[in-house]
Amino acid sequence: MEKIHVCIIGSGNLGTALGKILAENAAALSDFEERVNMFVYDELFDGIRLSDLINSHHINEKYLPQIQLPDNLVACTDLVETAKYADIIVFVMPKQFIEDFCKTLLGKIKPNAMAISVIKGFVLNEGDDNGGEVASGSGIQLISQTIMKYLKIPCAVLMGVNLASELTLNRYCEATLGCRDMKHSKLLKDLFSTPNFRVIVIDDADAVEVCGYLKHLIAFASGILDGLQTNENTKSACLRFALIEMLRFIDVFYPGCKLSTLFESCGIADVLTVCAGSRNRRLGEAFAKSDRSIEQLETSLMGGEQVLGPLTANAVYLMLQQKGLQERFPLFTIIHRICKREVKPEELLHCIATMPNIIYHPTQIFPL
Amino acid sequence: MEKIHVCIIGSGNLGTALGKILAENAAALSDFEERVNMFVYDELFDGIRLSDLINSHHINEKYLPQIQLPDNLVACTDLVETAKYADIIVFVMPKQFIEDFCKTLLGKIKPNAMAISVIKGFVLNEGDDNGGEVASGSGIQLISQTIMKYLKIPCAVLMGVNLASELTLNRYCEATLGCRDMKHSKLLKDLFSTPNFRVIVIDDADAVEVCGYLKHLIAFASGILDGLQTNENTKSACLRFALIEMLRFIDVFYPGCKLSTLFESCGIADVLTVCAGSRNRRLGEAFAKSDRSIEQLETSLMGGEQVLGPLTANAVYLMLQQKGLQERFPLFTIIHRICKREVKPEELLHCIATMPNIIYHPTQIFPL
Repeated sequence: MEKIHVCIIGSGNLGTALGKILAENAAALSDFEERVNMFVYDELFDGIRLSDLINSHHINEKYLPQIQLPDNLVACTDLVETAKYADIIVFVMPKQFIEDFCKTLLGKIKPNAMAISVIKGFVLNEGDDNGGEVASGSGIQLISQTIMKYLKIPCAVLMGVNLASELTLNRYCEATLGCRDMKHSKLLKDLFSTPNFRVIVIDDADAVEVCGYLKHLIAFASGILDGLQTNENTKSACLRFALIEMLRFIDVFYPGCKLSTLFESCGIADVLTVCAGSRNRRLGEAFAKSDRSIEQLETSLMGGEQVLGPLTANAVYLMLQQKGLQERFPLFTIIHRICKREVKPEELLHCIATMPNIIYHPTQIFPL
Repeated sequence: MEKIHVCIIGSGNLGTALGKILAENAAALSDFEERVNMFVYDELFDGIRLSDLINSHHINEKYLPQIQLPDNLVACTDLVETAKYADIIVFVMPKQFIEDFCKTLLGKIKPNAMAISVIKGFVLNEGDDNGGEVASGSGIQLISQTIMKYLKIPCAVLMGVNLASELTLNRYCEATLGCRDMKHSKLLKDLFSTPNFRVIVIDDADAVEVCGYLKHLIAFASGILDGLQTNENTKSACLRFALIEMLRFIDVFYPGCKLSTLFESCGIADVLTVCAGSRNRRLGEAFAKSDRSIEQLETSLMGGEQVLGPLTANAVYLMLQQKGLQERFPLFTIIHRICKREVKPEELLHCIATMPNIIYHPTQIFPL
């Protein structure tokens, strides 16, 4: 039987940490070709090409210093060369390049290859300008759906890998792999798992990815409460309402998903982890304590990088607005309005205290 | 129409804080008799009877100093005198006295009175010694069921009031009132609610109380993880598995309950609050960091008072053992064994990392 070729597109800290795992597992498992190509953006580090550094010293000095990488993880600066023999293409890169990368790869990869997206966030679909206030069809397009659309191959998603540092330090981590075809589940589980990195494969790929983007919004909300120095009861109430709105959001916009996915690692567990500590939580806290805009804080605190919580709140709001559902999602709606400084951060407290207490009974998703 | 009389049995910090709310609401609402009796154990404070101090200075110097109480909250050291005219009897006292108190009150109260239990914990039923390893029928008896059994009146439960200090500081708190007869729901909601204390009434009283006792076990587990200085991913995974076992436990032992109750304040929210900070969390942390027994730590850290987490783990284990279900509840089981020092606290990490990933599909409780 032919060996299965794996490649990874992206070499940031998470990409490199996953590349290490994939290469080590590919070397250890007989089903896989040992060599794992890793696409590295062609840039210089201390005057030397980063890809050359990785291939000679087997350390990614720029994005994951001090971690020894296996020799069979091979840096490659040509996207098509990286992926052309791959049966499994793992995408771990900033979301803004995904459409271009797919266009470059289309027709140059194996027709029966499969993709796995570990990309954070979503693609904002601008929609069609119909002269109304909101363009119809605007809102969130799932990254896995974007990959499938442009690359014409199936795409699974891996969510819940929230900290590259914990992966490389071999501290216990869990992730959920949402797979569109469960016949590959055993193979993919073996490819990603380590004794400290537990990968659970389920078939509810869309819900896995939706949990993955909504958590940023919730972590940002949690940060706002920290910035307001509120009490534990309020924070817990906020999380409870956030989980209920998450469930309702999936029910309205992603019918056919499963309630059980909320109890997977990508659901409740990942929400709790990012609320305990993440860039979104930190940005939310800083936002509540100052009068500055999101963009100003991203510049001063986040090295100018866009943080996903406010972006998600905005995109979610666009989707709710088109269906006139803002009132049924008071928490998601107020977070967006707070981000825009239309209302004060303190309004979140009022929203929580007056939240209609309706435990949502889903009608479009599978019950537990 | 006759005014509704309310009394409260217990005057610890939570009892006094709730007494203040009940008396203020009774004075403000026309349905209620203004005077609210509060049973106070006959003890001295600085050489003066505590009940006299409360009735003259309107401050409970021993259990809730610095908080001014309303004049219509009347301390009373005679249990029967406290309750004999009451239509609503609120119990907020240590669980070990509940059976004696009920026996004293039986036949001396209004036959159509109703009880509300805010008592923490449960009654351990010793069961019948049948010569086997575990007495059959041993395990947890709900306090509300105990009150109904001994006092022959219906008993609702109020859970999620986890911090008397937050109530008196007027910080936002939520609680769930599990009511056996929803015809009183509006009245009870009005009696307990304040602008910062939100009471949500549901009809699933048993599940509300079960969430109320299981949370102590989970908070203790969370403390163990803190003591082991584990990472956020592990703590989140533990909470996720704890919620799944909670759901499964209710399904097995309390058929007919509702999944939606897990999403109420008494469920997920209260679990998160006590995991963030509580006596159980602190005891768990200290336990993982030392070699001492639970009893020794209770003596040195908790003023000799029994903490509910280990007691709950023990009682839950007894119930699982009788049905031979330990393997289906690996988390609850390992917590009990850790409490007994049968295994090291580190075994909790192994348990989490090897937990079978089965999202439980309840068969005996109502779906969401």
